Amino acid sequence: MDDRKSSGQSRSARDVRVACRKGVLTGQTAGSAPGYVQGNLVILPRDLADDFLRFAQRNPKPCPLIGVSEVGSPQVPELGDDLDLRTDLPRYRVWRHGELVDEPTDVLSYWTADLVGFVIGCSFSFEEALLAADVPVRHIAEGKNVPMFRTNIACTTAGRFAGPMVVSMRPLKPADAIRAVQITSRFPSVHGAPVHIGLPGSIGIGDLSRPDYGDTVAVHDDELPVFWACGVTPQAVIAAAKPAFAITHAPGAMLVTDRKNSEFAAF
Amino acid sequence: MDDRKSSGQSRSARDVRVACRKGVLTGQTAGSAPGYVQGNLVILPRDLADDFLRFAQRNPKPCPLIGVSEVGSPQVPELGDDLDLRTDLPRYRVWRHGELVDEPTDVLSYWTADLVGFVIGCSFSFEEALLAADVPVRHIAEGKNVPMFRTNIACTTAGRFAGPMVVSMRPLKPADAIRAVQITSRFPSVHGAPVHIGLPGSIGIGDLSRPDYGDTVAVHDDELPVFWACGVTPQAVIAAAKPAFAITHAPGAMLVTDRKNSEFAAF
Repeated sequence: MDDRKSSGQSRSARDVRVACRKGVLTGQTAGSAPGYVQGNLVILPRDLADDFLRFAQRNPKPCPLIGVSEVGSPQVPELGDDLDLRTDLPRYRVWRHGELVDEPTDVLSYWTADLVGFVIGCSFSFEEALLAADVPVRHIAEGKNVPMFRTNIACTTAGRFAGPMVVSMRPLKPADAIRAVQITSRFPSVHGAPVHIGLPGSIGIGDLSRPDYGDTVAVHDDELPVFWACGVTPQAVIAAAKPAFAITHAPGAMLVTDRKNSEFAAF
Repeated sequence: MDDRKSSGQSRSARDVRVACRKGVLTGQTAGSAPGYVQGNLVILPRDLADDFLRFAQRNPKPCPLIGVSEVGSPQVPELGDDLDLRTDLPRYRVWRHGELVDEPTDVLSYWTADLVGFVIGCSFSFEEALLAADVPVRHIAEGKNVPMFRTNIACTTAGRFAGPMVVSMRPLKPADAIRAVQITSRFPSVHGAPVHIGLPGSIGIGDLSRPDYGDTVAVHDDELPVFWACGVTPQAVIAAAKPAFAITHAPGAMLVTDRKNSEFAAF
């Protein structure tokens, strides 16, 4: 590996996965392998996987599936030839009956033949497109996590999975908000267009300064809060369902795939 | 002409033009020849036409040109084989030094060899697309003209043509506003995406209940005002320039072309 490749900025997606596999990278993946799609991970036993697949199909904006493994297989070849869901993320969370029981750097010892892995698109992809178009992203500029809110928008229920949509919020000047609708509409497989602009009370958000997840960011007088469906939605829905067993990525420690963000542009 | 063709709803674009040419249709064209592009008309002497052409090139959102005639020719073949700018609109306005001097149903007697005709896209095209997508358009529902406002957004000057952008306003619920951005973005040659959403004060609009042109419509608490660049902009700019001679369409009495709205969709 040459020097250039050893810096985070210029790592290829595979290099990032290999670094995870070797236990070298155990933190967040933001900014790793720029240009490549990163995904949220959910692993569920087969008996719940069908319900979850239907939940995702019925709620594609908060839960855009970009890859699903075969039962018992930790591979998702369409996201990377060598990709192994058990080892290729920096850190995992293991849940039993809704309780967090472990945060390991691999889940080899937890893997069983009845597990199914789901990879869900994430907002990193569209944020890259926003920044490329000079649409500023406040939480990135402030070095924070995006603020996220539970809404009064109900997801469509599937089996044991039900709950409200969680949204992420980015404050934008109106002309940038319009541009952001255009840009993110091009990426339906990574949450797509916003679900709401400007009137948080009407989707059940009382106080923009008190997010349910993530950090608070300033919303200036000349800005509108713009809300996108958020990948925390399926995490919250799974937490509420308290499955006997589940594995997810640790917050910010995503799966880095070989698919380019640009491949996901619909037009 | 059969009975079906004699009703406004089922008239072809050419039938509408012929009805204008014969002096049978002298009123508004809204709803005539549904599906076909209607245009604003501006006719200027050659010495001003170059400035106006550059004004339109520099300000495509308020002034999207869909056809320009040769000097001295009343024809615009790309908008209709038989089309004659002198006769094919229901009613015209004739201006001298900024003063309205006549409102004839044809301008045959005013036509001279140094005139140039400009046809400018109009919001009817994108409103049809909004309605087709079940995005409600308030002023249509209320049987009114769209409310229009002068803004503090300066157009880019070209020769004698300068002035602020005029915008039209449609109140929409936030989810519809997002859909409207997507839909109207597909029609860049008929004003395209909105120029502003939600904070009228920041574009110099003090009171939404007092439009500078058109009618007042209600904006409900659960709605955002959404603003599009408006074809009244070039009309206002020409009025301010007080050219020695100019002809325009009379308000609402547009040129009906053979181009379909669907042809103008960029994607």
